[in-house]
Amino acid sequence: MLVIKVGGSAGNNYDALCDDLAARRESGEPVVLVHGGSDETNRLGEALGHPPRFVTSPSGYTSRYTDRRTLELFMMAAGGLVNKGLVERLQVRGVNAVGLSGLDGRILSGKRKPTIRIVEDGRQKLLRDDWTGTIDAVNAGLLRTLLDAGYLPVIAPLACSEQGEALNVDGDRAAAAIAAALGADTLLLLSNVPGLLRAFPDESSLITHIPRAAVESYLGFAEGRMKKKVLGAQEALAQGVGRVILGDARAAGCVSRAVDGQGTVIA
Amino acid sequence: MLVIKVGGSAGNNYDALCDDLAARRESGEPVVLVHGGSDETNRLGEALGHPPRFVTSPSGYTSRYTDRRTLELFMMAAGGLVNKGLVERLQVRGVNAVGLSGLDGRILSGKRKPTIRIVEDGRQKLLRDDWTGTIDAVNAGLLRTLLDAGYLPVIAPLACSEQGEALNVDGDRAAAAIAAALGADTLLLLSNVPGLLRAFPDESSLITHIPRAAVESYLGFAEGRMKKKVLGAQEALAQGVGRVILGDARAAGCVSRAVDGQGTVIA
Repeated sequence: MLVIKVGGSAGNNYDALCDDLAARRESGEPVVLVHGGSDETNRLGEALGHPPRFVTSPSGYTSRYTDRRTLELFMMAAGGLVNKGLVERLQVRGVNAVGLSGLDGRILSGKRKPTIRIVEDGRQKLLRDDWTGTIDAVNAGLLRTLLDAGYLPVIAPLACSEQGEALNVDGDRAAAAIAAALGADTLLLLSNVPGLLRAFPDESSLITHIPRAAVESYLGFAEGRMKKKVLGAQEALAQGVGRVILGDARAAGCVSRAVDGQGTVIA
Repeated sequence: MLVIKVGGSAGNNYDALCDDLAARRESGEPVVLVHGGSDETNRLGEALGHPPRFVTSPSGYTSRYTDRRTLELFMMAAGGLVNKGLVERLQVRGVNAVGLSGLDGRILSGKRKPTIRIVEDGRQKLLRDDWTGTIDAVNAGLLRTLLDAGYLPVIAPLACSEQGEALNVDGDRAAAAIAAALGADTLLLLSNVPGLLRAFPDESSLITHIPRAAVESYLGFAEGRMKKKVLGAQEALAQGVGRVILGDARAAGCVSRAVDGQGTVIA
């Protein structure tokens, strides 16, 4: 079982990713693909006069401030355009993909954080009307039903709150939760960098291996959104996933390369 | 088995619809909900500088001209915002809905019409780069798997071409094809009018009953988009659906009222 997260930022090559997924299909290995949607959401928000706002938590994690309008933009961009765009690319290549979000069938359920604490200009502040959340549980049954029937689920990072509300959740941590719930051997977190870099953005400074016991000590090398990938990796490993690989989604064969150990292997 | 199509135009009351679906849930009757997305697609297109263009076929049917950009807008509006908005409304009411489009798992497969013939200013013309299509087959297996597991599928009217491309398809005819494939007893086509009107838009001129053998002769009363509903009804009945009701989606209890025969009953 292979769970793959592909980022939503510029540079990620969705066509190459889908080529590789189609080529690997004959192996019969079940695959779940989780995606982001940040770039498309930003673009849509800019065009519609509701530009993105990124905030930093007291512990240094950066995330999107998601008011209700931003949640709707995210449904359109991640749940609509990116999700159906990936499904179409896979269908064109003969892979019977099924696009869903974590809201659907409560694939991802969690808690809403209606108020978030952020740091701005060195001071802590509270933001209200936020529609982000944590992930507490995965409906592995629905995913297994689809996998057993031969489909490739493609999942947008929305979740369902205890009250049934839609939530914007982090895609890397969503993929980690899904990999753990399905007992995946391997979780690939692919983005537009080769992996965790010792001296970001110098790509020659790639960290090729991190022993699972030492993940914490490598958090310091993670810049910006890479922090959540390392955190997701840690969560997946703690819940029994065999290995996590932070790999490059920019080039041909990106899935196979990462499975073969190119990138930052955490195991 | 009940298949419902709810229109995407102004006036349709999604909250009332979902209230009614939740209240009827204890009956245990399997339900599939198909929706439109025309109003949201228009609004998004207007806001993004790509306004809608409606065209009329030589036989008098009106439809959206769907160039590639419009297809993407449709993925965002219908596949994203409307689909996930309905799923969220149902989840909030305790109904475990699963939002998909007909592209996903090839729930709806059909043929693309890359060139369409239209009538403009009384003359016939050919339009290219069109991403609409017909529906030839329904993946009833995937829908049955979801229904058997207790989910309520919510379907956006996209389909998958023979080449795997995404297509914009008519929601009423999509619902008709799904109802036929699932052997539904009843198909409800709900919109912002009480049913087929003898003298549109006079709502007191509602046609309450059409014998199935006489559907053709009533086509003349159908204005604009109502034509496709009557056509969808005809297709569903020809393929074994028990009855089709053209009903009102504006008021509370809209599903139960239509099931009880309020609207235009074609049987």
